[in-house]
Amino acid sequence: MVQYQGQLDLTFAALSDPTRRGILERLGRGSASISELAEPFGISLTGLKKHVQVLEQAGLVSTEKVGRTRECSLGLQDLDAVQRWIAGYRLMLEERLDRLGELLERTKGHES
Amino acid sequence: MVQYQGQLDLTFAALSDPTRRGILERLGRGSASISELAEPFGISLTGLKKHVQVLEQAGLVSTEKVGRTRECSLGLQDLDAVQRWIAGYRLMLEERLDRLGELLERTKGHES
Repeated sequence: MVQYQGQLDLTFAALSDPTRRGILERLGRGSASISELAEPFGISLTGLKKHVQVLEQAGLVSTEKVGRTRECSLGLQDLDAVQRWIAGYRLMLEERLDRLGELLERTKGHES
Repeated sequence: MVQYQGQLDLTFAALSDPTRRGILERLGRGSASISELAEPFGISLTGLKKHVQVLEQAGLVSTEKVGRTRECSLGLQDLDAVQRWIAGYRLMLEERLDRLGELLERTKGHES
């Protein structure tokens, strides 16, 4: 459970930045080196490396040293835990809204 | 687009903490005051208020002053944008894995 919560923490935090989400979208089209990734985002190599590290810790990116460059590709973390948490939350929210709706209906009934 | 990205930033960041996810799960069972929320998490009122503020900024919680207490309930943000982003990501990951699988099959074909 703690491990599950830790994975959720890392994943949600990794996804909370637009550059990191952009890196994932870019890697969805194919692997890229650190410098190939840095260019379109207009940030320094150091800045980009930090973002990649955060994504790597969350299992969203994997990197491999190829000669003098570091090749980045999508990790195999499929966001299943995150999607399950969100689906559970939405279900809970719907149930809550349904209960509020029923309460409102009953209150109306008493008024008329 | 910037607004959409900003909403994703706030929501993912708000969900990256186990106490904040716990607060949302608790509020799914019904509204609660700040002190009612603080007790089960064993944290100070000040600490809890900060978490509630982060959730409120993301639209996940709404609060209302009732007499001397502040009543918290689930906000109406249904995490639709977040779920769409994640669904898009998973689709992209699946396509990428399919392409890698095809490449592997073709490589095998050449070998035999």
